[in-house]
Amino acid sequence: MDKKDEALLERFGEHPTPFYYYDGDALYTHVSSLLARLHPAVRVHYALKANGNVALAGLLRSIGCGVEIASAGEMFVAMEAGYAAEDVLYAGPGKTVAELSEAIACGIGCIHVESVRELRQLEDIAAQAGLFVRAAVRINPDNDLSGATIKMGGVPRPFGVDEGQLDHFFKVLEGCPHVYFQGIQVYTGTQMLKADQILASFENTLQLAERVQAQYGVAMHTVNLGGGFGVPYFTHEQPLDMDHVIDGLNALAEQTRSRMPGVTLIIESGRYLVAQSGMYVCRALYTKESKGEKFVVADGGMNHYAAATFRGRRIRDNYPVRIMRRQAGEQEEREVEATLRMGQRNASAQAAVAVEQSLGEVASQIGGLPAEASMELETVSIVGPLCTPEDCIVKKAQLPPIHEGDYIAFPNAGAYGLSYSPLHFLGHATPAELLDFRGEVHVIREHGNRTDLLHHQRMIPLPEDVM
Amino acid sequence: MDKKDEALLERFGEHPTPFYYYDGDALYTHVSSLLARLHPAVRVHYALKANGNVALAGLLRSIGCGVEIASAGEMFVAMEAGYAAEDVLYAGPGKTVAELSEAIACGIGCIHVESVRELRQLEDIAAQAGLFVRAAVRINPDNDLSGATIKMGGVPRPFGVDEGQLDHFFKVLEGCPHVYFQGIQVYTGTQMLKADQILASFENTLQLAERVQAQYGVAMHTVNLGGGFGVPYFTHEQPLDMDHVIDGLNALAEQTRSRMPGVTLIIESGRYLVAQSGMYVCRALYTKESKGEKFVVADGGMNHYAAATFRGRRIRDNYPVRIMRRQAGEQEEREVEATLRMGQRNASAQAAVAVEQSLGEVASQIGGLPAEASMELETVSIVGPLCTPEDCIVKKAQLPPIHEGDYIAFPNAGAYGLSYSPLHFLGHATPAELLDFRGEVHVIREHGNRTDLLHHQRMIPLPEDVM
Repeated sequence: MDKKDEALLERFGEHPTPFYYYDGDALYTHVSSLLARLHPAVRVHYALKANGNVALAGLLRSIGCGVEIASAGEMFVAMEAGYAAEDVLYAGPGKTVAELSEAIACGIGCIHVESVRELRQLEDIAAQAGLFVRAAVRINPDNDLSGATIKMGGVPRPFGVDEGQLDHFFKVLEGCPHVYFQGIQVYTGTQMLKADQILASFENTLQLAERVQAQYGVAMHTVNLGGGFGVPYFTHEQPLDMDHVIDGLNALAEQTRSRMPGVTLIIESGRYLVAQSGMYVCRALYTKESKGEKFVVADGGMNHYAAATFRGRRIRDNYPVRIMRRQAGEQEEREVEATLRMGQRNASAQAAVAVEQSLGEVASQIGGLPAEASMELETVSIVGPLCTPEDCIVKKAQLPPIHEGDYIAFPNAGAYGLSYSPLHFLGHATPAELLDFRGEVHVIREHGNRTDLLHHQRMIPLPEDVM
Repeated sequence: MDKKDEALLERFGEHPTPFYYYDGDALYTHVSSLLARLHPAVRVHYALKANGNVALAGLLRSIGCGVEIASAGEMFVAMEAGYAAEDVLYAGPGKTVAELSEAIACGIGCIHVESVRELRQLEDIAAQAGLFVRAAVRINPDNDLSGATIKMGGVPRPFGVDEGQLDHFFKVLEGCPHVYFQGIQVYTGTQMLKADQILASFENTLQLAERVQAQYGVAMHTVNLGGGFGVPYFTHEQPLDMDHVIDGLNALAEQTRSRMPGVTLIIESGRYLVAQSGMYVCRALYTKESKGEKFVVADGGMNHYAAATFRGRRIRDNYPVRIMRRQAGEQEEREVEATLRMGQRNASAQAAVAVEQSLGEVASQIGGLPAEASMELETVSIVGPLCTPEDCIVKKAQLPPIHEGDYIAFPNAGAYGLSYSPLHFLGHATPAELLDFRGEVHVIREHGNRTDLLHHQRMIPLPEDVM
């Protein structure tokens, strides 16, 4: 997202915070240019888990993506977003019989089978319904070439069928006449930032596909290479070299077509498609000092954007944050942007220098904003409104002074933002979602309200003696 | 909760998993016996953030608790649960003007003011509405005697007014004729398990109250001592000695009444009141092996009970888990219970012994079930249905063999369970909540459904050229 602060504040208009803001035009350009550059044998499926907004999912469909779902609930959202059933892939280690039955009845594009047990269930369900089902086998390969930090395969995992169990799988498949075998899927890791590792993993999967085809005599209609394309969140992370990934992937597609004519290569992607065109936006309610430390209390926090807190993070860096101020009665704003490392317990001169450097880095990374190195910075923590020390979304960062009413925006929040957060914790309204597309800011999710908390709940009559 | 497996399975009946199950009778006994033992000057307020179920909150009201809320949304739930406005306390570092206005208009019992800024806002709002508001000041004391792991005060925090800023606070208060000063509140920490530390913290708060009364000439109607009564989750934790806490608290109340006649001491408690009477219950969908490790895939996981995962935990122990099996066509069950430490990467003989010991410990702790030390244990991880390695709710624990359909229950899940979890992540239905009270199992929250995912969402018309 490369809109400057002034432009952003104009787009935010009078929409009350907190909200997620998506730059639909940036998303459109980003995804359509990716699709345009891919070999015709490569298809991209949007992993709906990254962001379950129906309008965003619809936009990605209209650009030309298929979709990948992980539950019957996500199937429903995908249908509402206008996806054809045959463009839907269904993965997940814990599909229930009810979910499988429904997917089969819908004529789903492909089910990624994650165990021999599930294969048998598919056959039983399809046979009983008098239907057929397209299925691929998710394989947990023997080797792990991905170098991924968050490994999905190559190590003991609940996902897929071990490569060493394939003999058994294909033997059982022979007795499953209602299952149309489509091919294999391998998903080795997520949030990968090294192009060579991704390509090595893809190549490994394609070799595995050839071995499976040769060894078990099954035709390979699709080879699902997984995805895992990462986005940089921190200044110490280098963006993924997508030119290199695309060139390498296209070359692999060309080779593969000559050896497995008619095969389609599938890429699944959630984070890479949507993360960078979204931001979480809240506002400063109060500023305060406690025992020598400065705090800004914002109107949203971990309840809406849990990923910005430090829960479970290996590297406890702060996410980059943008502070924007709207002057009363005029459109003058300050452009300030900063990203800071946690742990600068005392703002030393050295830390300040590092901060200015990272200001420069991030500024150039997300849109060429000038680093205002001359501006006085102060050490501040930004917390949300919850009554827990966990609700800290920026910890002891060097930032320009924040005033009440300032917008506090977290870029790169388009993926694993709202859907990943404990929305009802402490009972605040769920955030809105705004999609800025072709000149109009659409409210694609309205702010929640307090009756949401009572949805599906029921009082009980209390016995008289209790009353 | 001390129901045996057989009794529990009978109560679960045909309710589909996953669900939260609350033993309302145990809750009633637990809370009413606590209240009965407290000095008449002590009042207990239920911290609704621990569990926002309206029926549970109603039950606690009927037993005699007040309530403590942290948002306008929670105020709404409290009202629906039948609390009188004057029995509601409102705390939180980020209250908005809209929320404060509403609370004042309702005639709320007391607002805990967390900054001088908020005090001024209260006065402005009340004056403008021609109303009066009862308020207490939340103080972040100079010293920290609590020894709490999760500190809420005594250190730099966004919560409350530093003790060193009280001069300024009370000076401003003099110019706030619409604010009726009630007293002070100090909340130093949560999940405390040492009685002496809790009592030292209470005593410290009472001394602070006397100093404030003397120094600023304000009458002290309430002294809110906070809470933080912990519950043991792991075998290495000793339960809080509540006899000692109650005796000490009652003695403090008696002394305080002589020095500040008419004062009410307030205890806030969420976790201690409700945690131990709730359990999260899911079932095994599949069992599988991957590269030599055993996995059980359950029908629920981090999306419903995030606390059982290892996110952000300092001590990465597994929570205790109960495995229960219902035999087809009969009511014969196996009683098995186990708690295990994480990190037993290889099941060694030593680990097995430790396991049997903790089996015994936990068994006696939650209900006297016999440890079946003779049963063969195996190393297994239990995962939920989500497509992420994060969705691991039991990691490499020593457990008896788990079969498909077995119930997997996490005791002590009555607090910070459902409300703390990213319910919509990957689109599975939200869990039900069952309240077992006086012979009837009430559905106090129905299972969610897929339309929940689209609640408040809107599609946008996509431009023709995009279609």
